Amino acid sequence: MIELSLVGMGTGNPDHITRQGVAALNAADVILLPRKGADKADLADLRADLCAQLITNPATRVVGFDMPVRDSAAPDYQGGVNRWHDAIAEVWLAHIQAHLPQGGRLALLVWGDPSLYDSTLRIAQRLALQLPLRVSVVPGITALQALTAAHAIALNEINAPVTITTGRRLRDHGWPANASTVAVMLDGQCSFQQLPTEGVYIWWGAYLGMPNQMCISGLLVDVGQKILEQRQTARAAHGWIMDTYLLRKSDPDPA
Amino acid sequence: MIELSLVGMGTGNPDHITRQGVAALNAADVILLPRKGADKADLADLRADLCAQLITNPATRVVGFDMPVRDSAAPDYQGGVNRWHDAIAEVWLAHIQAHLPQGGRLALLVWGDPSLYDSTLRIAQRLALQLPLRVSVVPGITALQALTAAHAIALNEINAPVTITTGRRLRDHGWPANASTVAVMLDGQCSFQQLPTEGVYIWWGAYLGMPNQMCISGLLVDVGQKILEQRQTARAAHGWIMDTYLLRKSDPDPA
Repeated sequence: MIELSLVGMGTGNPDHITRQGVAALNAADVILLPRKGADKADLADLRADLCAQLITNPATRVVGFDMPVRDSAAPDYQGGVNRWHDAIAEVWLAHIQAHLPQGGRLALLVWGDPSLYDSTLRIAQRLALQLPLRVSVVPGITALQALTAAHAIALNEINAPVTITTGRRLRDHGWPANASTVAVMLDGQCSFQQLPTEGVYIWWGAYLGMPNQMCISGLLVDVGQKILEQRQTARAAHGWIMDTYLLRKSDPDPA
Repeated sequence: MIELSLVGMGTGNPDHITRQGVAALNAADVILLPRKGADKADLADLRADLCAQLITNPATRVVGFDMPVRDSAAPDYQGGVNRWHDAIAEVWLAHIQAHLPQGGRLALLVWGDPSLYDSTLRIAQRLALQLPLRVSVVPGITALQALTAAHAIALNEINAPVTITTGRRLRDHGWPANASTVAVMLDGQCSFQQLPTEGVYIWWGAYLGMPNQMCISGLLVDVGQKILEQRQTARAAHGWIMDTYLLRKSDPDPA
């Protein structure tokens, strides 16, 4: 039996991790960490630093693995994602067989929270087809929470709903029907550019929780261009960027 | 100048708090804690226990205050909420004047995360009209994250949106247009009863993160009545209940 603990690590601030997360890491026999890729070295370093800082159990072993690369040119988006998840599950399985042949406790550090636009739970489902597996989840701070904290704003208006969506959906489907507040994740393309700006306010943040955190807010018509420019500059300087944003209209679209 | 730190404490598990939260509590001169009411004594105790367990700075003072009661019979819901927030801001102001007359660092423990269906940021805005105030937010684990962690499920389907809403809105407006996944908070009335059950799956949880955590999941048509019954029994036994749930239809409503 493998007891797999998925530990939400928050978004770039090592102090985002909860006491429960620290305990779960120290209860693990093995922690699997993705090795640094070329373009997001800071993120791999952050995971390794977090382990170095928090793991006090000498029996806990940290094992690196090479993360398979998603075929972003696959004609079917969902199919490409599914094949990528299959490949990751295979890599995990090989490491489990190598490092925990008799079973034991495995932990994975998950960016943000395992529940929100993260694949780890779905990859774990694939593993469960291959070996006896019990999955537990330790929640972590999401990028949306880091965003609202950085701006010191609430996600919702009083008694009002919030739609969380992706950049891809915003591009394909436009402003979600009847939504007054829209949180956008997984958007590498500043998809807010494709919206009518009329009456839309934006709260944008990048590198949330990190020392180089960036925050811009204002009417989309006023700050949209500034976000595009600062995002491009920062991305060029760091080699990568992770950002998210919240959009709000005071009057919900009657569509 | 008052530096007000709003510290998300998670939802009932003292280990939900982050390292950042622990640091913020220990950096405070004063922590204001609501005194226990008659019906939610466990929650007041949880805050006090958390402070007792985490505060190592001898200079940090924990000060209790009596939480004003919201007039739930007010004919206008929003007006009643606004007057309640006014009253809370007045109580905080009185305690600040008494305990931090020269200014300093004040911390408040916020259930869940200050960004999600919580009033603390709005009450702080009222304070800012009365004195020089700088607000910072420390994110915490929300009930939704505790729910998805307890069920070991993702909040969203791949590349799909999620609508977060309230029990009141679900009763007044029905299933949100075009939503396939709906997370429901602030629902004291099991508002899922008013939905057509056809094809709807529910993941329900109460006392999330606590030792007496309850979880039920299944097709709404199969488990709806069980949730109602177990909720009523648990509420009678504890004197209070806090619960939340996630609903999902595989086919989004074309409305």
